[in-house]
Amino acid sequence: MSEHVDKASMPLERVRRYLEPGPIVLVSSAWEDQRNIMTMGWHTVMAFAPSLVGCIISSSNHSYEMIRRSGECVINLPTTALADQVVDVGNSSGAEVDKFERCGLTAQPAEKVSAPLIDECHAHFECRLFDDSLVERYNFFIWEVISARAAVLPEYPETLHYTGDGIFMVAGKIIDRRDRFLPQML
Amino acid sequence: MSEHVDKASMPLERVRRYLEPGPIVLVSSAWEDQRNIMTMGWHTVMAFAPSLVGCIISSSNHSYEMIRRSGECVINLPTTALADQVVDVGNSSGAEVDKFERCGLTAQPAEKVSAPLIDECHAHFECRLFDDSLVERYNFFIWEVISARAAVLPEYPETLHYTGDGIFMVAGKIIDRRDRFLPQML
Repeated sequence: MSEHVDKASMPLERVRRYLEPGPIVLVSSAWEDQRNIMTMGWHTVMAFAPSLVGCIISSSNHSYEMIRRSGECVINLPTTALADQVVDVGNSSGAEVDKFERCGLTAQPAEKVSAPLIDECHAHFECRLFDDSLVERYNFFIWEVISARAAVLPEYPETLHYTGDGIFMVAGKIIDRRDRFLPQML
Repeated sequence: MSEHVDKASMPLERVRRYLEPGPIVLVSSAWEDQRNIMTMGWHTVMAFAPSLVGCIISSSNHSYEMIRRSGECVINLPTTALADQVVDVGNSSGAEVDKFERCGLTAQPAEKVSAPLIDECHAHFECRLFDDSLVERYNFFIWEVISARAAVLPEYPETLHYTGDGIFMVAGKIIDRRDRFLPQML
């Protein structure tokens, strides 16, 4: 059950703020009357404008066909509070269960895509397929983020960064080095 | 000045252990009598075997031509102990200074590529160009890691994860959820 959390839209070039640190994310998708969630750790920011994100979605995932057919998904950012749900999403198959129900996650309508948001997550990046030229060879999708929202607080939530072997690193502590940067590099 | 740290080779499919969490990395390169270092935060693991890593290297970087011509680089993993050097590498240009000298970093010969390692870093991934089909459109390089080494200790060093605006998140604390995984998912 989700609690009410204030979330605000952000300019699309701010997506890097959340994804460049490399967190594990939950990708939600829908096609016809099906919906699903998968975990994803293999992604990278690719451009500010248009706001592009590249990622690997293996064709062995139940989500693959839904994502391929719809050409849409939502990248949701979970915090450490959702560590168990993240593991459970990665360790079950949408072919057998509805992962929203199984994992106690709440689907909410997105603004610009048919795929649902996962309300319990800290941030949501609605994506439309931008380039599928490397999908066949590498399962590499390039997405354009067309809408982005994040919880207003906390400013730097604790996020999960997967290392394999069931172990996550936690990021959340901040090092501020703004005063060491050249102004044009900020 | 670097101190002696025991480093060991690793199987190439273990590269994800270090790069999937999304740390900022230092990319070293060489061409003819030049060498350089650049910071990079836009990268993703793409495959276990061959061990593939994709990344954005903007053509505005002084390293770009060296990397393009040599078809090689080393991805080096810095820890929080190198936060100031990471900032300084990102805020100077190899067209004007030798960044190894300017930032007090030590070049060491790599095993399989001409680009030097940065000895002070925790881990080193020697890369050979695997696929440049998206370089012209996105500055997106796909590398095959052909040799990988890491410091034996600490097992989980504190790494830097860039958010933009001069601010890094620090990862290092661990959450172990192995007992919640299905055996085949580990």
